[in-house]
Amino acid sequence: MNTAKNNGQAKGRNNNDKHEKIMRAAIKVFAKNGFHNSKISQIAKEAGVADGTIYLYFKNKDDILIKVFEERLGEINAMLNDQLNRLDNPVDELRFCIRGYLELFANNRALAEVIAVELRQSHKFMREYVPAKFAEYLNIISRVIREGKDKGVFRDNLLPGVIKRALFGALDELMVYLVMTTAPKYAIDTLVDQCSELFLRGLSA
Amino acid sequence: MNTAKNNGQAKGRNNNDKHEKIMRAAIKVFAKNGFHNSKISQIAKEAGVADGTIYLYFKNKDDILIKVFEERLGEINAMLNDQLNRLDNPVDELRFCIRGYLELFANNRALAEVIAVELRQSHKFMREYVPAKFAEYLNIISRVIREGKDKGVFRDNLLPGVIKRALFGALDELMVYLVMTTAPKYAIDTLVDQCSELFLRGLSA
Repeated sequence: MNTAKNNGQAKGRNNNDKHEKIMRAAIKVFAKNGFHNSKISQIAKEAGVADGTIYLYFKNKDDILIKVFEERLGEINAMLNDQLNRLDNPVDELRFCIRGYLELFANNRALAEVIAVELRQSHKFMREYVPAKFAEYLNIISRVIREGKDKGVFRDNLLPGVIKRALFGALDELMVYLVMTTAPKYAIDTLVDQCSELFLRGLSA
Repeated sequence: MNTAKNNGQAKGRNNNDKHEKIMRAAIKVFAKNGFHNSKISQIAKEAGVADGTIYLYFKNKDDILIKVFEERLGEINAMLNDQLNRLDNPVDELRFCIRGYLELFANNRALAEVIAVELRQSHKFMREYVPAKFAEYLNIISRVIREGKDKGVFRDNLLPGVIKRALFGALDELMVYLVMTTAPKYAIDTLVDQCSELFLRGLSA
């Protein structure tokens, strides 16, 4: 194409807009109807695009669902990396990882519902997906734990590869509790405080 | 029916045998083919019963899957209750809860795979199932935590309703790691030790 550079940039932005619009629409539709009952045509309608447009950006319904997970988790990772660079001690850093995960989902119920419930119903996701961004997320946690060990703040006999999974499992279960319970007994601040104190005392040297 | 008591018992046992046989067959078939691709006829063949026999015991495929979860978790609960009564301190009790969960699944890979992967793909399970045995399991953990608080072994400001979920989430994630990783880097004893020390120090008064 003989478009000028500016035109190319505008087109790139336009593409990103549509990609993002379709993702946001899909989160709403999946959360409302469930993944299996959702139709591409409903997502297209919600996004205000033609059905065929969806296939310019995504291979199929599973692909949209997996990209929702990957891209949102990629955003959490970027946000965590950015914030963790500003904090100078592993205690505050771990606390931030805990609060960040729970707050993100508490502030975006539809996304939380899609990740807590619908994502796990995708056979493709459970069996075939190689979770690149998820591994990256876990490694941010293990980096904080390793840093804490190096600084003598956390115990020396801790295995970051085990602890990162235990912490993620705890956070994920609390997220599911927050999202799936009709009137949760515990507020998000309580969950963050209990979980932070539990893990920080558990890791403490 | 005018069957004598003994006959009734024999029939009851026979029913239980078939029920159990079908469940065991289903675990194998689900783990091998995945829940969505499994057919009632495959389960019947594996169990050595006629297709129609399955429907005498279960409503449908979702019903078999959910009963596998409920009944196996019921067995874990019974085993935990039995053992916890013999232990006399909350530290050993919590350690036993952690080892019990991980060992059960490590010793039964097909069951673990069905619960870790296939169960979550059932829309019925994720959306409609009221998890009675799961709630019972969580309450065994919170009872141990409450006992520890009462005895002054665990911190006073702990909320057992939050901690039980954090611990379950951690255990479940470690179980998924054990089952879904081709050559896990960490042995089950390492996972049990790391997780026990993390939580016991985290809860400690």
